[in-house]
Amino acid sequence: MMNTVDSSKPPHHVVIVGGGFGGLYAAKALGRADVKVTLIDKRNFHLFQPLLYQVATGSVSPADISSPLRSILSKSKNTKVLLGEVTDIDPQAQFVILGEEAIHYDSLILATGAKHSYFGKDQWEEFAPGLKTVEDAIEMRRRIFTAFEAAEKETDPEKRRAWLTFVIVGGGPTGVELAGAIAELAYHTMKEDFRNIDTNEAQVLLLEGMDRVLPPFATALSKEAEASLTKLGVAVHTKTLVTNINGDIITLKQGDEFQQIAAKTVLWAAGVKASPLGKLLTERTGAECDRAGRAIVEPDLSIKGFSNIFVIGDLAHFAHQNGKPLPGVAPVAMQEGQYVATLIKQRLKGKTLPQFSYTDMGSLAVIGQNAAVVDLGFAKFTGFVAWLFWLVVHIYFLIEFDNKLLVMIQWGWNYFTRKRGARLITGKEMQPDGNRYYGSANDRQLVSG
Amino acid sequence: MMNTVDSSKPPHHVVIVGGGFGGLYAAKALGRADVKVTLIDKRNFHLFQPLLYQVATGSVSPADISSPLRSILSKSKNTKVLLGEVTDIDPQAQFVILGEEAIHYDSLILATGAKHSYFGKDQWEEFAPGLKTVEDAIEMRRRIFTAFEAAEKETDPEKRRAWLTFVIVGGGPTGVELAGAIAELAYHTMKEDFRNIDTNEAQVLLLEGMDRVLPPFATALSKEAEASLTKLGVAVHTKTLVTNINGDIITLKQGDEFQQIAAKTVLWAAGVKASPLGKLLTERTGAECDRAGRAIVEPDLSIKGFSNIFVIGDLAHFAHQNGKPLPGVAPVAMQEGQYVATLIKQRLKGKTLPQFSYTDMGSLAVIGQNAAVVDLGFAKFTGFVAWLFWLVVHIYFLIEFDNKLLVMIQWGWNYFTRKRGARLITGKEMQPDGNRYYGSANDRQLVSG
Repeated sequence: MMNTVDSSKPPHHVVIVGGGFGGLYAAKALGRADVKVTLIDKRNFHLFQPLLYQVATGSVSPADISSPLRSILSKSKNTKVLLGEVTDIDPQAQFVILGEEAIHYDSLILATGAKHSYFGKDQWEEFAPGLKTVEDAIEMRRRIFTAFEAAEKETDPEKRRAWLTFVIVGGGPTGVELAGAIAELAYHTMKEDFRNIDTNEAQVLLLEGMDRVLPPFATALSKEAEASLTKLGVAVHTKTLVTNINGDIITLKQGDEFQQIAAKTVLWAAGVKASPLGKLLTERTGAECDRAGRAIVEPDLSIKGFSNIFVIGDLAHFAHQNGKPLPGVAPVAMQEGQYVATLIKQRLKGKTLPQFSYTDMGSLAVIGQNAAVVDLGFAKFTGFVAWLFWLVVHIYFLIEFDNKLLVMIQWGWNYFTRKRGARLITGKEMQPDGNRYYGSANDRQLVSG
Repeated sequence: MMNTVDSSKPPHHVVIVGGGFGGLYAAKALGRADVKVTLIDKRNFHLFQPLLYQVATGSVSPADISSPLRSILSKSKNTKVLLGEVTDIDPQAQFVILGEEAIHYDSLILATGAKHSYFGKDQWEEFAPGLKTVEDAIEMRRRIFTAFEAAEKETDPEKRRAWLTFVIVGGGPTGVELAGAIAELAYHTMKEDFRNIDTNEAQVLLLEGMDRVLPPFATALSKEAEASLTKLGVAVHTKTLVTNINGDIITLKQGDEFQQIAAKTVLWAAGVKASPLGKLLTERTGAECDRAGRAIVEPDLSIKGFSNIFVIGDLAHFAHQNGKPLPGVAPVAMQEGQYVATLIKQRLKGKTLPQFSYTDMGSLAVIGQNAAVVDLGFAKFTGFVAWLFWLVVHIYFLIEFDNKLLVMIQWGWNYFTRKRGARLITGKEMQPDGNRYYGSANDRQLVSG
């Protein structure tokens, strides 16, 4: 019998859940393959998460670092974008379930990422918001700028001090970047803007449980980062644990000593947990997940017993390279997405691929407007050169975005003028009593987004 | 006795309520005068409202058309910006009340503007949002882009048609601009983006009760505007009244005939009423207000019996020029703000001013990406030249904004690429049942702003 292509057979259907770095790169890599692709996301846009802290601190607008998924994929005629939320998976019958709708797949790629985690202290979320979504960033922005407004109105010196105290929990890249940006806001950008307060009196505290900031970086770079932060005016506290947070007081533990700090603004950059789909998947397939809720994947990123289900990005626990799971960063997700796309294409040709292997291009973090630390493994550098490098890399990866050029101009403008044009307090109305700025369940939430 | 300045006397305190065009221009005109100025606003930013429809249709971000009040006024060292909401006024003792705080004034300028009005049918607001605030614009944007997403998923042709039907109520400048922008979105910008629907099947209806769109313009320009809209694909219905709106059906009355249209997206651009401060002021002073809640002002914009209280902008009913009240547009507010500032300065010198007189610089409205109508009184023009004129005028008045240049580049970019980068659906999470996109009181409103 001749080996002919059966043209009556419907094309292989790849369903991708999640339009972050992993899902999007998988979709793009499949855009010209002879498969049908459905990309499902709760949101209609891809978000360039590494710059989210710039939204939170008023440098750029959400739309500057977001791009509609439909626009990015409009040229991939084999690809459908579907706005929706996957509520269940049937790995035996090969369906993903979206509420009352079921979609059949031949291959499934799960890439729904992670959100911030409070290590079981979910009651802290109200007082210490994290930074994963556009809405998170707008909420942080609202709290930061409202705190300065409240301090301006406050006549009691102690309360004013609490409004001017900003605590960032977690000394990873996000925490370092947030702390640096808030210090610059207080000590440079806004120093002319108030009449009752001196913004130089603001305190920015960065707390890290380990013995240094940026633990994944080389020790020397952590030292450099700490020095840059200190120069900017950030008080860096390492080996410091948070034992309690409420709306006014954060309790710290350093060694055996406890300390209480009155702070109205606490920002969470300390930990993440995988999206609930990880746990759901392991329940449905019998595969394992780790303590952070990430699905433990095989060397080819598939799930044990289901070679047509793949998990990538922050949702995946891949430990086949050096025993430690790969970190939850964009380059890992991108490379995994591209790998799975290639693997699916190879399998359709009856071939296979060697196991996934991550190529580490290095780490980088920015500290204020002209300092950064870059760790490329073979080279490490800091200061202004590192900042320029950071800028070029981020602009390069904003390549999906219409407004790459605009963001660059905006950064240039902000850099030279130290202005921040996106300092909008939006969302919740001011409370006339002058105290309850942060709102409650009863607030009229006029908006959205 | 010599006429000396009494240096022990505290400076004359001007309190301005509202940081829109009227209040901001008054504050700027007083920035170097020998007075103390306090500008009170609920929001921390000035909003360039004429471009709000571009936020609603995904062309620009809120921050592109907003600027922090503190930044704009940072050089005016005599001026304090206070974030708060005025809850009462005591005209006899000369205090404005903000909740539990009272601020004494020597002169008071009220400029709190207007919001949209449903002519007593407040139950329509839920189904037909208006466009006055950043939050309104984000809500409109969410509804417009969510409707296309819902249509893409809908298999029932009738329901799909309802998702693809956009009704704009009100044929003034905002309604015309919204209708034009939505038509361009559907028929140009997004035509490649969907796989199940043909966005050309979308219907954009513009309803106007009078016999022509843009009633304040010359008749010939109204005709031109209608022709441009029709060419873009907008169905213009004049002499059409809305008698009912619910979430799915809008009921129209044309002459004696009633018609029902299934439309999931209804946008309100039909009427405004003054901020509640107008009515409050008239209760406290005994002055009159009109049916729209605007305070009827004297020829010098003060309130009857209180020569040190002024009302300007959309909150004022000024009919001393030709018997008709001045329209609620930015140039009126700006000129009134500058007039009152000058009057206060003159009075402090013991002088006075002739009554306020508005210089009408003309009207303009934009229809899509290369047509507009401009009515300067002495000259009327339409089409591409009018569009360029519109662009130049708007950029000129964005002069307060850091990002004037950026907005211009963004417009240029959008113009040449017909892309819209700010097409974010944010704020409310998608409902997995695939039908309830617009949310309800139970929705998790993750955000704000």
